[in-house]
Amino acid sequence: MSAIPEEFVRQTARLSEDVTRPFPASRKIYVEGESPGVRVPMREISQAPTRTSQGAEENPPIYVYDTSGPYTDPRAEIDLLKGLPPLRDPWIEARGDSERLPGPSSEYGRLRQRDPALAHLRFEHIRTPRRARPGANVTQMHYARRGIVTPEMEFVAIRENLKLDELRRDPRYARLLKQHPGQAFGARLPEEITPEFVREEVAAGRAIIPANINHPEAEPMIIGRNFRVKVNTNIGNSAVTSSIAEEVEKMVWSCRWGGDTLMDLSTGKNIHETREWILRNSPVPIGTVPIYQALEKVDGKAEELTWEIFRDTLVEQAEQGVDYFTIHAGVLLRYVPLTAERVTGIVSRGGSILAKWCLAHHRENFLYTHFEEICEIMKAYDVAFSLGDGLRPGSVADANDAAQFAELETLGELTKIAWKHDVQVMIEGPGHVPMQMIRENVEKELRECYEAPFYTLGPLVTDIAPAYDHITSGIGAAQIGWYGTAMLCYVTPKEHLGLPDKEDVRDGIITYKLAAHAADLAKGLPGAQIRDNALSKARFEFRWEDQFNLSLDPEKARQYHDETLPKEAHKVAHFCSMCGPHFCSMKITQEVRDYAAEQKAVKAGLEEKAREFREQGAEIYKEV
Amino acid sequence: MSAIPEEFVRQTARLSEDVTRPFPASRKIYVEGESPGVRVPMREISQAPTRTSQGAEENPPIYVYDTSGPYTDPRAEIDLLKGLPPLRDPWIEARGDSERLPGPSSEYGRLRQRDPALAHLRFEHIRTPRRARPGANVTQMHYARRGIVTPEMEFVAIRENLKLDELRRDPRYARLLKQHPGQAFGARLPEEITPEFVREEVAAGRAIIPANINHPEAEPMIIGRNFRVKVNTNIGNSAVTSSIAEEVEKMVWSCRWGGDTLMDLSTGKNIHETREWILRNSPVPIGTVPIYQALEKVDGKAEELTWEIFRDTLVEQAEQGVDYFTIHAGVLLRYVPLTAERVTGIVSRGGSILAKWCLAHHRENFLYTHFEEICEIMKAYDVAFSLGDGLRPGSVADANDAAQFAELETLGELTKIAWKHDVQVMIEGPGHVPMQMIRENVEKELRECYEAPFYTLGPLVTDIAPAYDHITSGIGAAQIGWYGTAMLCYVTPKEHLGLPDKEDVRDGIITYKLAAHAADLAKGLPGAQIRDNALSKARFEFRWEDQFNLSLDPEKARQYHDETLPKEAHKVAHFCSMCGPHFCSMKITQEVRDYAAEQKAVKAGLEEKAREFREQGAEIYKEV
Repeated sequence: MSAIPEEFVRQTARLSEDVTRPFPASRKIYVEGESPGVRVPMREISQAPTRTSQGAEENPPIYVYDTSGPYTDPRAEIDLLKGLPPLRDPWIEARGDSERLPGPSSEYGRLRQRDPALAHLRFEHIRTPRRARPGANVTQMHYARRGIVTPEMEFVAIRENLKLDELRRDPRYARLLKQHPGQAFGARLPEEITPEFVREEVAAGRAIIPANINHPEAEPMIIGRNFRVKVNTNIGNSAVTSSIAEEVEKMVWSCRWGGDTLMDLSTGKNIHETREWILRNSPVPIGTVPIYQALEKVDGKAEELTWEIFRDTLVEQAEQGVDYFTIHAGVLLRYVPLTAERVTGIVSRGGSILAKWCLAHHRENFLYTHFEEICEIMKAYDVAFSLGDGLRPGSVADANDAAQFAELETLGELTKIAWKHDVQVMIEGPGHVPMQMIRENVEKELRECYEAPFYTLGPLVTDIAPAYDHITSGIGAAQIGWYGTAMLCYVTPKEHLGLPDKEDVRDGIITYKLAAHAADLAKGLPGAQIRDNALSKARFEFRWEDQFNLSLDPEKARQYHDETLPKEAHKVAHFCSMCGPHFCSMKITQEVRDYAAEQKAVKAGLEEKAREFREQGAEIYKEV
Repeated sequence: MSAIPEEFVRQTARLSEDVTRPFPASRKIYVEGESPGVRVPMREISQAPTRTSQGAEENPPIYVYDTSGPYTDPRAEIDLLKGLPPLRDPWIEARGDSERLPGPSSEYGRLRQRDPALAHLRFEHIRTPRRARPGANVTQMHYARRGIVTPEMEFVAIRENLKLDELRRDPRYARLLKQHPGQAFGARLPEEITPEFVREEVAAGRAIIPANINHPEAEPMIIGRNFRVKVNTNIGNSAVTSSIAEEVEKMVWSCRWGGDTLMDLSTGKNIHETREWILRNSPVPIGTVPIYQALEKVDGKAEELTWEIFRDTLVEQAEQGVDYFTIHAGVLLRYVPLTAERVTGIVSRGGSILAKWCLAHHRENFLYTHFEEICEIMKAYDVAFSLGDGLRPGSVADANDAAQFAELETLGELTKIAWKHDVQVMIEGPGHVPMQMIRENVEKELRECYEAPFYTLGPLVTDIAPAYDHITSGIGAAQIGWYGTAMLCYVTPKEHLGLPDKEDVRDGIITYKLAAHAADLAKGLPGAQIRDNALSKARFEFRWEDQFNLSLDPEKARQYHDETLPKEAHKVAHFCSMCGPHFCSMKITQEVRDYAAEQKAVKAGLEEKAREFREQGAEIYKEV
């Protein structure tokens, strides 16, 4: 009897149709690095030529950052039951500072592995975990500080550049490369990102590369304010709904639409098994909030949590390959009463669990008191800290208050401790913040946390629009990204109301991708405007297909267009449904442009004659 | 045989069901002013009590700005065939400075009225138009500058305040009234808006009250940066799709969701008749772009436009009751070549029509050369100018360029001329602008146009997300509103792709309502945070129904909730589907709060004992 769950077999079949379909006019390319095995994926979007009165004019391909992993590569063989190829394994192996353990070293991990009742849920090809050799430190920050440029760093540098150096040498891109100067608020965005620049940023703690040695399937990426703004998505089953198969599908779906990292926030049964399936199939780094699972282990009773149970959970998850942990070590006992007069108290789940624990025991948060021990675990696998904002505001009324900022200061103290261990750190931020108070959050974070990357949820700029909170938060996200936040945690339309389905996930991701891109534009990230310029040029030239293909969501753009004008002929027509065939501003403008060009030509012709005349005159004069 | 179009009979029936349904837990109230007939509509949302261990605690009703007109008043009799009651008629009549004409004074208006072929389309109860008596000026600005506080100004003052003075005296609102200080960028937001303040703002040209004397059905509203940020919506049939009935339904739908004004951008057949139906049934001011209709009259050939045809169109529309006209008088001949090197040339329809006319005739824009004559028409009906930005950027590449800013300077020059005639003015703005360049737009507009209200389309902060441009532009709209824009022109998900359907209109409006509200919060508009505070308190207390009812779109909030947890029991449950029954941060926080309260009580008890002891001691001492 096969141990493969039947629902996964069905799932695999479905993925190939719905989620692995390549994007239109797109081709997955790989840019090779110098280190062996560095093959960086990008998506190349081809464009149709512009038809002018002088004939066809080529429009060059556009390169976009690609988070979709092998799922959109028609040449890749996808088998969710086997997982993705462990592309980083040779690099990790070559460093020689880690070793394969005979099996899980966490008690819970061993328990789950032995339980025959879980056979039908279990991923078939679980590798034994890898851990740093005794005394070794396997973090990217550790290497960076010792001057080592890892293949991960080289990968990231190539990935961030999107062939920009090449495009700059290609005359076809000259106009597309034109860009407004940015306002960078102290960010330092180099013209070209080198592996050495990546190393410096990681060494300084200004950026992190979440890359657990037990998640070699992930394609390296970087989170830091001197790089592209990133987007995190959340999935997670709960006691109420959802299954493993749904969660894995949402993960692939999230990568397809542009999620840079993904947090598995599951709280229901079989968290351990769900996570294994996700990790083995995920091309992006995975984050978790280990306290959620620890709480499951004590049947939801926060006061029964212990350091030992938590510690075992960290090891369990680190050995599965989780790339970053949200750790709410800044929820200190003395901060808890600061939230009592809030309109919405403590809204972070992790924060409320720890607040409850602190009050029940009248003792300091055990994550704070055991923080150095946590660092020891993190550095043995290269798990990055995402220092949790357990006291973030849950309403605009509570924004930037004493509780929130007290915790942020403590996160700064903890950052220093983590860095002492060369453990990578990012800092979580709010939440709900009205626009005029957003910037203070970034400024304070950069100051108090020594420029560790900021990772914020939204923020929502008003509380009055449930069902549209992807938008209330997208507004805040674009702004906070502009001010210097490195990664934006997405919010879906179902926020505050229910669990997102696939379409909600897509809406949430695209909203955050456009917000992150708006932030890149505003900061002046080199090359960021290429795609805008190309898409606008396509729009102006009525190249409908190119307009769709260059957009963040080509499928929806096409669908919306076709709802009004479904016929194929309309996609090459020089008008759209907004104006109709006789009345199109863009058509008229093209006439204006032709006219202006004519005028210019006439003027240039006259000047040319004049110049020739002068030159001939000069010549004659010279001969004399 | 009845002249009533059959489609309208069907339409009327449908409206009563879909569009006139009152909002949940809501009651339409009217606040009476001092002037006769000033009855200002508001929506009162009632709340359930909070259940505490000490029993039920009342939550007071919340008042929200109501643009929906009589359609959401179950006591109102709605008959689209008759139109809304002309509430402003007695005020206009009482001023004695206007007269009823025997019939339309525009040639085209008379033509349409006489045409028997149009009988089946024609609104049945067309009033004869009203016009200023010879030499009179009937604009709100004219009255304001002569020190007259009109009933319209009083109406607007009451409407903007939303009973704030009353709430301030009511202890139940003390916590809800708490608000963060705003950052107003020079806006001046008084604690209470008085009719006199409204008069001053209108007199200074910093605000307008669009209120054509031929549109007495409209409920007065104000557009200015020292008032609530407003939202305009667009409807309009085109040659490709749509019918009169659909347009009227979209108008009612737009008012329902919060559109403050509405532009009828129709370009197809029967523009005149469609407009009559819309005006007679619209509780909000209606704007148009008269050049669109003028172009129809010359069969779409821009070069055949004449001042005479345009003039007749202005009179035709003014006598129907259009409240503001977009006039692209700033598209000067010498500015047109400035657009030739743009990525997207001229994208404004009006702008491109006039550019084409200018180039065809090699003459200055006839709207510019006839501007004073236009003012004469405007002041005879009180039509406000919306000075069009015909050269707005159509891509981020073209933002803030020479063409855009040259036109803006000319709009400032025209503002001065309009004000010489006491004609109300607002200024249209972009468009597509990356975030770092948005603020410059507002600063320049305020400076060049002498603080005339700014009215912007978006702006979109990136070009790469067609199908999500309500969001790319909502991000820009929230920011530009914060910086001082008075009204935001909405964008729907179909922007650039096709004509919006009803759901697109709703998505667009709600996006812009939340953006406008976010701007109000950020500016520090007094009372703006009440609704956020009430909704967040409801959310924290698991008053699900109140959370839905207080939201901008109660129907969608409930629908999204019910998709995961449809049972009625779940709406009173102390958990949501995100966390499940055993694991809810808000539940835990309530325990934290109870604990903190206990702690405080214990401490207070000890202090009380100490105080009693001291006081008794003092008493004894005193008696000695």
